[in-house]
Amino acid sequence: MDGQPKITTDGKDQGHNRAEILARFRAVRDGSMDLAAPLSAEDQCIQSMDDVSPTKWHLAHTSWAFETFVLKPFDPGYGEFHPDYNYLFNSYYETVGPRHLRPKRGLLSRPALDQIHAYRRHIEDAVAALIDAANEKKWAEMAAFVDLALNHEQQHQELMLTDIKHVFSCNPLQPVYQAYKPAKGNAGAGRGDFGKPEWIEFPEGLVETGVDGNGDGFTFDNESPRHKVWLNGFRIATRPVRNGEYLKFIEDGGYRRPEFWLSNGWAAVQAETWTAPLYWRQQGDAEKNGGDWRLMTLAGERALDPVEPVCHVSMFEAAAFAKWAGKRLPLEAEWECLAADLPVQGNFADSGHFHPVPGPEAATSGTAAQVFGDVWEWTSSAYAAYPGYRAADGVLGEYNGKFMSGQMVLRGGSAVTPEGHVRASYRNFFYPPDRWQFSGLRLAEDI
Amino acid sequence: MDGQPKITTDGKDQGHNRAEILARFRAVRDGSMDLAAPLSAEDQCIQSMDDVSPTKWHLAHTSWAFETFVLKPFDPGYGEFHPDYNYLFNSYYETVGPRHLRPKRGLLSRPALDQIHAYRRHIEDAVAALIDAANEKKWAEMAAFVDLALNHEQQHQELMLTDIKHVFSCNPLQPVYQAYKPAKGNAGAGRGDFGKPEWIEFPEGLVETGVDGNGDGFTFDNESPRHKVWLNGFRIATRPVRNGEYLKFIEDGGYRRPEFWLSNGWAAVQAETWTAPLYWRQQGDAEKNGGDWRLMTLAGERALDPVEPVCHVSMFEAAAFAKWAGKRLPLEAEWECLAADLPVQGNFADSGHFHPVPGPEAATSGTAAQVFGDVWEWTSSAYAAYPGYRAADGVLGEYNGKFMSGQMVLRGGSAVTPEGHVRASYRNFFYPPDRWQFSGLRLAEDI
Amino acid sequence: MDGQPKITTDGKDQGHNRAEILARFRAVRDGSMDLAAPLSAEDQCIQSMDDVSPTKWHLAHTSWAFETFVLKPFDPGYGEFHPDYNYLFNSYYETVGPRHLRPKRGLLSRPALDQIHAYRRHIEDAVAALIDAANEKKWAEMAAFVDLALNHEQQHQELMLTDIKHVFSCNPLQPVYQAYKPAKGNAGAGRGDFGKPEWIEFPEGLVETGVDGNGDGFTFDNESPRHKVWLNGFRIATRPVRNGEYLKFIEDGGYRRPEFWLSNGWAAVQAETWTAPLYWRQQGDAEKNGGDWRLMTLAGERALDPVEPVCHVSMFEAAAFAKWAGKRLPLEAEWECLAADLPVQGNFADSGHFHPVPGPEAATSGTAAQVFGDVWEWTSSAYAAYPGYRAADGVLGEYNGKFMSGQMVLRGGSAVTPEGHVRASYRNFFYPPDRWQFSGLRLAEDI
Amino acid sequence: MDGQPKITTDGKDQGHNRAEILARFRAVRDGSMDLAAPLSAEDQCIQSMDDVSPTKWHLAHTSWAFETFVLKPFDPGYGEFHPDYNYLFNSYYETVGPRHLRPKRGLLSRPALDQIHAYRRHIEDAVAALIDAANEKKWAEMAAFVDLALNHEQQHQELMLTDIKHVFSCNPLQPVYQAYKPAKGNAGAGRGDFGKPEWIEFPEGLVETGVDGNGDGFTFDNESPRHKVWLNGFRIATRPVRNGEYLKFIEDGGYRRPEFWLSNGWAAVQAETWTAPLYWRQQGDAEKNGGDWRLMTLAGERALDPVEPVCHVSMFEAAAFAKWAGKRLPLEAEWECLAADLPVQGNFADSGHFHPVPGPEAATSGTAAQVFGDVWEWTSSAYAAYPGYRAADGVLGEYNGKFMSGQMVLRGGSAVTPEGHVRASYRNFFYPPDRWQFSGLRLAEDI
Repeated sequence: MDGQPKITTDGKDQGHNRAEILARFRAVRDGSMDLAAPLSAEDQCIQSMDDVSPTKWHLAHTSWAFETFVLKPFDPGYGEFHPDYNYLFNSYYETVGPRHLRPKRGLLSRPALDQIHAYRRHIEDAVAALIDAANEKKWAEMAAFVDLALNHEQQHQELMLTDIKHVFSCNPLQPVYQAYKPAKGNAGAGRGDFGKPEWIEFPEGLVETGVDGNGDGFTFDNESPRHKVWLNGFRIATRPVRNGEYLKFIEDGGYRRPEFWLSNGWAAVQAETWTAPLYWRQQGDAEKNGGDWRLMTLAGERALDPVEPVCHVSMFEAAAFAKWAGKRLPLEAEWECLAADLPVQGNFADSGHFHPVPGPEAATSGTAAQVFGDVWEWTSSAYAAYPGYRAADGVLGEYNGKFMSGQMVLRGGSAVTPEGHVRASYRNFFYPPDRWQFSGLRLAEDI
Repeated sequence: MDGQPKITTDGKDQGHNRAEILARFRAVRDGSMDLAAPLSAEDQCIQSMDDVSPTKWHLAHTSWAFETFVLKPFDPGYGEFHPDYNYLFNSYYETVGPRHLRPKRGLLSRPALDQIHAYRRHIEDAVAALIDAANEKKWAEMAAFVDLALNHEQQHQELMLTDIKHVFSCNPLQPVYQAYKPAKGNAGAGRGDFGKPEWIEFPEGLVETGVDGNGDGFTFDNESPRHKVWLNGFRIATRPVRNGEYLKFIEDGGYRRPEFWLSNGWAAVQAETWTAPLYWRQQGDAEKNGGDWRLMTLAGERALDPVEPVCHVSMFEAAAFAKWAGKRLPLEAEWECLAADLPVQGNFADSGHFHPVPGPEAATSGTAAQVFGDVWEWTSSAYAAYPGYRAADGVLGEYNGKFMSGQMVLRGGSAVTPEGHVRASYRNFFYPPDRWQFSGLRLAEDI
Repeated sequence: MDGQPKITTDGKDQGHNRAEILARFRAVRDGSMDLAAPLSAEDQCIQSMDDVSPTKWHLAHTSWAFETFVLKPFDPGYGEFHPDYNYLFNSYYETVGPRHLRPKRGLLSRPALDQIHAYRRHIEDAVAALIDAANEKKWAEMAAFVDLALNHEQQHQELMLTDIKHVFSCNPLQPVYQAYKPAKGNAGAGRGDFGKPEWIEFPEGLVETGVDGNGDGFTFDNESPRHKVWLNGFRIATRPVRNGEYLKFIEDGGYRRPEFWLSNGWAAVQAETWTAPLYWRQQGDAEKNGGDWRLMTLAGERALDPVEPVCHVSMFEAAAFAKWAGKRLPLEAEWECLAADLPVQGNFADSGHFHPVPGPEAATSGTAAQVFGDVWEWTSSAYAAYPGYRAADGVLGEYNGKFMSGQMVLRGGSAVTPEGHVRASYRNFFYPPDRWQFSGLRLAEDI
Repeated sequence: MDGQPKITTDGKDQGHNRAEILARFRAVRDGSMDLAAPLSAEDQCIQSMDDVSPTKWHLAHTSWAFETFVLKPFDPGYGEFHPDYNYLFNSYYETVGPRHLRPKRGLLSRPALDQIHAYRRHIEDAVAALIDAANEKKWAEMAAFVDLALNHEQQHQELMLTDIKHVFSCNPLQPVYQAYKPAKGNAGAGRGDFGKPEWIEFPEGLVETGVDGNGDGFTFDNESPRHKVWLNGFRIATRPVRNGEYLKFIEDGGYRRPEFWLSNGWAAVQAETWTAPLYWRQQGDAEKNGGDWRLMTLAGERALDPVEPVCHVSMFEAAAFAKWAGKRLPLEAEWECLAADLPVQGNFADSGHFHPVPGPEAATSGTAAQVFGDVWEWTSSAYAAYPGYRAADGVLGEYNGKFMSGQMVLRGGSAVTPEGHVRASYRNFFYPPDRWQFSGLRLAEDI
């Protein structure tokens, strides 16, 4: 089969062990419900801007994905839970028919949250029964689609947290999603010296990046195929840019000096009256030092920690900071060289912290830190098809390929990415002015 | 005291009997809760357009009004329920300080509905205690303010129903606010011949309209003072325009022929692609007869009843219909002449029907029908100050006066106006393109 | 014939003397060309906002009006100058067919100005020939239409000056339309004490306003019919509000204090960041006295003269000033009472000054000053049909009637109104936020 | 000297022969005037959308560039022609100070065209004198800046034609820029069979693209430095896509089928109601064959020629066409491989045709046709910095670098590009929805 997801004829070879995937199915589905647990039915209704979806919409849409990618194609006896849900919970798939307009998702008090819970159970029962009943041939055909729908749901788990943070930021009562939980092993960190990054050097040469979809483990079609890229020699920082460093940029007039900005970035600064990353608030006298800056987090507002990676910056801000610092953003292939052989460890959503953590006091020379987790790192690479990429036909072909215009690649995952979801070849993408997602940056430079 | 509300030094003379007003206070406050009862917490969160407020916002704002107009000025020991509520639930009073922006009312999942219920009880306890404890002097000072806040809450009861209808109209699941309840004594009506209005003639002359605020019973400041108006001789229809008549206008190309429309109205027809009143939906073949038209109501969708008064038309549509019919809209003073001596009877919210009802089979000559209730009737009078009107100082001065620009007067109340709230001198006002309110029209002509 | 213009069967009775009207035709047509004379072909192309039309469009549209109102209906042999001009130069007449969109008038480099001059001559020759050749019967039919087209052209003469002022205000080079010419008899005026208005008192009573269209002299249909209005007793100022007085309002925080403003007005102040009338510019230190304010005029920029009537204020600003002053705007009927018996004298366009002039040092008690000319005076009356008004059928019916929504009446004419064009019953109309026209105000109050 | 333009210490080595550059200066400056010659002063005022600049603004801005890049830095005695021109004619250089807003360029009737002509002469005299008087050291410093300003003016010559085409397309009179002049040697072409492209194959390998700025001849900084790129094997069409082929796409429902479109492209199709390339107009019955399509050109409207390269398509349309055809757009490096060794010959502005010409009847196998001239060819490469690129400091650094966000690269030049201006390494860039420029496409595919 050409396209996405990449499927072999033998489900087992793909780690598509039936029992294991069923267990993972239960765990992922429960995980979404757990993330919604601190939120009231009212909280789960709100859409604070067009880019944001209500929590309960995420809960329903991720179920719709199982219905559309797995149940309808593979279960001839499947009965729809509700005839209108295909219309209501289709996100952007033109081939599946007309759909409710994205900016109007916040108008749906009905279906009630209870109904969406029932929808989830309906889907879960049907998927579990289908997995159980499928013969080997069918399982070999469908396993990759189950895997895709699971990975899709994990993407929406990140969006649930990303979106509810924005929703709460619009509420003058400053609601808290969950109480503050210090990150593992970082109880005493922060508010100290933010140090300097060290640099790892890579010589020029032909490298391979991306993956071939029929290897081990799930990957999205946009990570394929593996392909050669020539890179000039470069250096890349051992850690992401920290709040303390970003504050220097602000204090040096970064948001008032057009010379650092892309033309569209400078226009955004003026139109949106940006003076700092999203969720930063300056208390009291703006002339004072950085201690006055406060950060809105999912655990409420607290003082800015200079040792944490800067988060919630747009690509425009990331690029302006890099120019101010005399550096540049890395290419996505450069980033992938850095990440290629590192273990996928870091501060992920499963830690329950839901916020970038302070970095290690000093990165040991040659050892990259906070590559995975904490913050998505903007690259200077436009989101485009890899050489040889071809979108699948039908609904799956709309998953990624049609968004390859106008967006930039981010790498590495964030503090709200589910653990196990991200990898070195993983490509996230947002528009240059977007900043409600957990995005930061890492510096690079030519040798 | 100059201005609004009109207060005499002796509360008793104003019907400001303490026990009676307390009973009314309980009844009105309970009434708001009753109206919200069919709605879930999620339903009560939604703001479907800038003009619409979420139900729970109405519940809170009407409490804020008692706090602001009664408790804070008259109860020195009053303690605020929550320090942020003055910011959140101030609708438009500049003198009370900054406020949450109107288009963002739908982002407030918090305070939760439960909290707003608690706020209501807090206010109710404090107001009841204050009424109970006030000496005669204080009571004489404050009674009119209690009365104002009660009338204010009744206005918002109408808005609660008006707004939730719009909210539900945006939901593809077509939620129903309450099951259909045939109007009293009209069980068999409808779908028949819609007849012709008869005409009542008034000779030219000097009339008096409006009221003097210090007469019996509560009135808003915009109804004062009573003043003379010269009217040329005119005729006015015995009943409002009916769906069946309006359908003739549609079928005659009314929405495609600019000659009937005000210039701004024609621009609205094109920009909004209006082809019928709001909440009308044509099923099947548009070339077929009127039986295909269906109406969305608070009780769900049903076939258009030609004998019901047309409802949810803008002033632009009302004026275009009148021009098509060779008539005109009445002046508000003309309407008031018609209504002046009639009993305030009709289909009001307290009937539980929440929808215009079919009119009497034939209006007996000389007897006006459906003057009160059913539909607000657009007049051709711009909403302006009566001669001698002067807005009060401070917060009360913002209640009505500052809106006297760009709006038109409507008269008579509607099927969602609380019974007892409206009267012959009552002036409602909306912008010419507005049509989510329960608005219809009655024809008039020169003699 | 019902409607507008009011025509009798005998042209002579209407002052429709053929020789006289022909002379007036020549004079008015030449007058338009004279007004355009100081402007280059490039100047005459510019549309600086949707409300503004390029000068050469005015020159063409006024010719189109003769073609549409006079030549096509009355001259069977008339040949169009160009087949596309009906499309290009129709302003807003739906009944005449599709038309070029108003906001795109500034894109028409073609037809070249020369072509438009040729079009004007073509029209003038045809109209003159038609007037000459018409028999008595035809002349009786057509005379009023010639008169209408002439008055229409005079209205556009005012707009030509109003619009080019706005065009030039958008040009950083600050072009000057014509050199400054001191107003007749006011050479030494200005910059002195701006004095206080005196007040003229009118007792309550039934008055008649408006005119009956078939009386002497041309009137627009919106001035008809003459009708009774009851007025309470009132006082009205002997002169318009002056720059010096308005400056006091500014210095008292008028643009920062919502309590003076209509709700929509306050929204406009904030959205448009208004801090003074249009064309006022503050030079240097804003904390200094009024001498720092400068005024952009058609003769270039100069120091604000405190004795001139304030000009280029919106109705929102006029109403806010009046409230600040403890007064109100007059009703249009009140204004007409003041003006009814006064000679139509004042500073008009024919003086060549094109700017409000300083008022008389002190208005002699009981004598109203600057009633006509200088500035259009905002009233508190919404622009609506007079009782008994009925728009004509066809193209003429679109002249005035369809604009009777959302606008307010202004009275008296301005410094750019052609002399002889205005009268006591004349009704001009603009939207409340408009202020590029020459609009000021006169105060009134209740007795 | 770091940055752009790349300058060596010896002007002669760069082909910066003083006499030759002076001759070229005269020729380029005269060329701009020649292009404006068919246009009236009025034509030269018009700005038909924000992206378009008036012709006379181009004439002035190209003079401002000489003033800013050459005269002010190198001529200490230079006196400005007018103190406001730096404000009026600065396009986007933040470092040069505040500037007139781009969307308001069409409001500038002043300076008059005559004044801009005088400004041009003032600049030309000063530049010629400076070139003449400069000693060798100064000449070596300044020669590259003169060259830059000349190339800048050539870019604006293309924009003058591009923009006036759009201006005229907005005019219902359909003005013609110049009479139709058949392209050299193609008098009888067109309206025949549009054939099929052949394909040239390139094996995989490491290639070098771009240039090093200090080589022979002028290049822009965005073409540097020369750098290695790995390319997979690919095939590229011998000629651009033709109108006849594009028409097949339209007839196959291309504009109604979302499956071919990028998500943002499909949104643009719906929002802009695109049904064909810009300047295509379908006459008569839309169901008929392609003979009904007509094309608006600078020489007026004429029948669509199926053998001409399709022009005025957005990148969204180009990509949708490619997907429909089962192919893809080339990478810019792939295109550069094709073009690298070809002579820079084709239909350029200097031919006086100003329109894509029909392609050769059949491309001889292996021979690429219409690589240069006719139409800019969209690539799938986002406009980004080449590895090692570094923008210059100061005003020159704003020339290209700050626009490297959100745009796509186009290659090859067009029928309105001045001859001699373009080369294999030349990178043009526009936003994906832009289509008023002369843009087409060439297909590619993987081997």
